[in-house]
Amino acid sequence: MEDKRFTSVDFVNMERRFRAHFFNSLSGFKSVNLCGTEDKKGKSNLAILNSVFHLGSNPPLMGMIMRPATVPRHTLSNIIEQDHYTFNHINKEIIHEAHQTSAKYTRTQDEFEMVGLTPYYSDNLRAPYVLESKVKIGLKFRERVNIASNHTILIVGEVVEVILPSGAVGLDGFVDLQEAGTLTGSGLDAYLETKKVARLSYARPYEEIKEIEAFMSMMKE
Amino acid sequence: MEDKRFTSVDFVNMERRFRAHFFNSLSGFKSVNLCGTEDKKGKSNLAILNSVFHLGSNPPLMGMIMRPATVPRHTLSNIIEQDHYTFNHINKEIIHEAHQTSAKYTRTQDEFEMVGLTPYYSDNLRAPYVLESKVKIGLKFRERVNIASNHTILIVGEVVEVILPSGAVGLDGFVDLQEAGTLTGSGLDAYLETKKVARLSYARPYEEIKEIEAFMSMMKE
Repeated sequence: MEDKRFTSVDFVNMERRFRAHFFNSLSGFKSVNLCGTEDKKGKSNLAILNSVFHLGSNPPLMGMIMRPATVPRHTLSNIIEQDHYTFNHINKEIIHEAHQTSAKYTRTQDEFEMVGLTPYYSDNLRAPYVLESKVKIGLKFRERVNIASNHTILIVGEVVEVILPSGAVGLDGFVDLQEAGTLTGSGLDAYLETKKVARLSYARPYEEIKEIEAFMSMMKE
Repeated sequence: MEDKRFTSVDFVNMERRFRAHFFNSLSGFKSVNLCGTEDKKGKSNLAILNSVFHLGSNPPLMGMIMRPATVPRHTLSNIIEQDHYTFNHINKEIIHEAHQTSAKYTRTQDEFEMVGLTPYYSDNLRAPYVLESKVKIGLKFRERVNIASNHTILIVGEVVEVILPSGAVGLDGFVDLQEAGTLTGSGLDAYLETKKVARLSYARPYEEIKEIEAFMSMMKE
């Protein structure tokens, strides 16, 4: 297959939607999550995010990128009001419902109701999880960082609770997301399953890499 | 399968490596890339990254997270010296070589040589691409943002060049990464292939989501 080269002149000349699809997919596969929040009156909100990433393990921190002027609406103000929010992994059974949360509902409409997903509350958090989601992550707001280059916002949160299938956690701590049914995202609208190629051993100079053997759950079946 | 709940007390008590595996995989699937740089003398460097993400389309911006005190070594200083760097997607054929770049080589050692990958230079960039990589992204350094919560650094770059298989770009701009053979990553050491479940139409309230039909390349075969 021939290679094609694009440079900055081409980017400027791209039609707006073409450019959005192009760069949203170019950056590689993404973590897709439903972000659950509530306002002070307890009204819940649910928004799909494709910009969640790992920031650190100790303390456990995750980042997400938000555009203040556009979607997801209400999520940012709820996080700041209640200090808590949730990330909920998306599986094959709920992709239509998850994607539908990106529709522009009004402030008085609850996305859980509108798309048909079930809020689930833990005692530890002022934010709803998605019951249908198999991997549920509860976070406490830590830091808001402004990115000057394009006026996006990085929201940093500390993980304070995790609820997931016991069999998906390995003896070494690795969470087998394929086993848990978690999907990955590409671009603005694609959802994909995964199939493990390999886990590879810790790399050292002049030492050959080995494939790590089959997954062993930390939990007894 | 039973659910298991972990809270902050459990995180503190986790063994250090267990905690690293747990949180690195918990955040969802990742974009894995090789980052190519060179120093002022033209000595090249290659480092594997699992923290690249989309920041915006106009201008086209991508972010990456770095830990200043640890790996990847030399990448940050090279980016600041030369103002340019590359992201190169990882495919199945080069996962061992790609993973091996995470070994702690000395400053005088060139990862390209040490792991057996081929530098490829474009006239537009003071940084090497990886010839074996099918999706090559050239960036210009834009901004360094310090994240106070854990002293990590967000590096923002503007995409100035893209080289990829012509057949992987759709009529609507969507880049079919599965078609291009791009892998996704999980945790610290897992690499996975993807299989598309669906692309879904733009969501609007009270409108049913449709699956977007088969991929049509913008290029004639």
